[in-house]
Amino acid sequence: MSQLIESLQWRYATKKYDPARRVPDEKLERILEAVRLTATTSGLQPFELLVVTNAEVRRKIRAVSWDQAQITDCSHLLVFAAWDDMTPERVNMMFDLTNETRGFVNPGWESYRQKLLGIVNERGREGNYHSAARQAYIGLGSALIAAAMEKVDATPMEGFDPAAVDEILGLPARHLRSVVILPLGYRSEEGDWLVSLEKVRRSRKNFITEIN
Amino acid sequence: MSQLIESLQWRYATKKYDPARRVPDEKLERILEAVRLTATTSGLQPFELLVVTNAEVRRKIRAVSWDQAQITDCSHLLVFAAWDDMTPERVNMMFDLTNETRGFVNPGWESYRQKLLGIVNERGREGNYHSAARQAYIGLGSALIAAAMEKVDATPMEGFDPAAVDEILGLPARHLRSVVILPLGYRSEEGDWLVSLEKVRRSRKNFITEIN
Repeated sequence: MSQLIESLQWRYATKKYDPARRVPDEKLERILEAVRLTATTSGLQPFELLVVTNAEVRRKIRAVSWDQAQITDCSHLLVFAAWDDMTPERVNMMFDLTNETRGFVNPGWESYRQKLLGIVNERGREGNYHSAARQAYIGLGSALIAAAMEKVDATPMEGFDPAAVDEILGLPARHLRSVVILPLGYRSEEGDWLVSLEKVRRSRKNFITEIN
Repeated sequence: MSQLIESLQWRYATKKYDPARRVPDEKLERILEAVRLTATTSGLQPFELLVVTNAEVRRKIRAVSWDQAQITDCSHLLVFAAWDDMTPERVNMMFDLTNETRGFVNPGWESYRQKLLGIVNERGREGNYHSAARQAYIGLGSALIAAAMEKVDATPMEGFDPAAVDEILGLPARHLRSVVILPLGYRSEEGDWLVSLEKVRRSRKNFITEIN
């Protein structure tokens, strides 16, 4: 079995964290870097990542998240916040960054810039937000694997009031919308009802179809 | 640098595949297994994965995908297909599978089943599809990392006509909708304009916010 498959078998949605244990900086940085390096549509990276350690802010978030204790007990709380729209400014920012990083202007890439500006204009704000949110979930996939490979526990959570979390974090002014949150930390020695239960997935034949 | 970060640095959206090289079965299986083990909302796994090697089917898909050659030149074409709705039957199927796998009925889990049935009923078909599509993107994140760790090239693609791909693959009858496709294979020795260009990502400070 590969280390990746082992890590995916090891991980589970941690229900109770040990509030005394902190994720070391070097592990946290590798998890964040995995999200930063994640592939996204047209290379736009149409989301941002917030790392919340502030206790008061986490208490407020917990209050609008079904009172789930992982939010305040974990070591670091990641918030994936998608662009609320793919504006021409944002698209151009990433294409300009590409030119700047690579040190030259590629005519094919410039032609694709114009095509993409047309696509996002036609798709409209809500469609662009849905696309951005999907990209954030690719990043969530990276974070889950990166954490597991560092033997850091994590709990992907959609059970929160996104508009309320947005207000707490000042996201509307930044034109961002919270889509999923991820407590990171270490499982408690006791009191986690899920830790000892078998992982449940559909069988290969009920999940994968081969068209040969 | 960890093997994961190295793999994420190594990968890129491959533009030209060597059609003569096939991904070995054991590597393919580890990539598929990483997707199957991916975390999803409430454990629903609200998507399926199709593995297309059939040449005629791939020609048809290429024709509705901006004629992108990776679709026919790659070794295996993965299609991520999200549930078009989260019906009570599907929710119950996964909760029943959980009970069957774990060998007992958990009252807390049964109470959550009823709560979730209420949520998906209230959210409606389109909202449920959007949620399912996001989960498929977590799986995409797993597939991209799994492929890179196997030194298998991959190209995440949204540039296709989903309704046309659905028809080609018979997805409407299975109540599935294609959301993203992923050619897997090996880069061509020549002719890939992207392979030698620097990866572009926003800096840590333009991507990550710390709230301490």
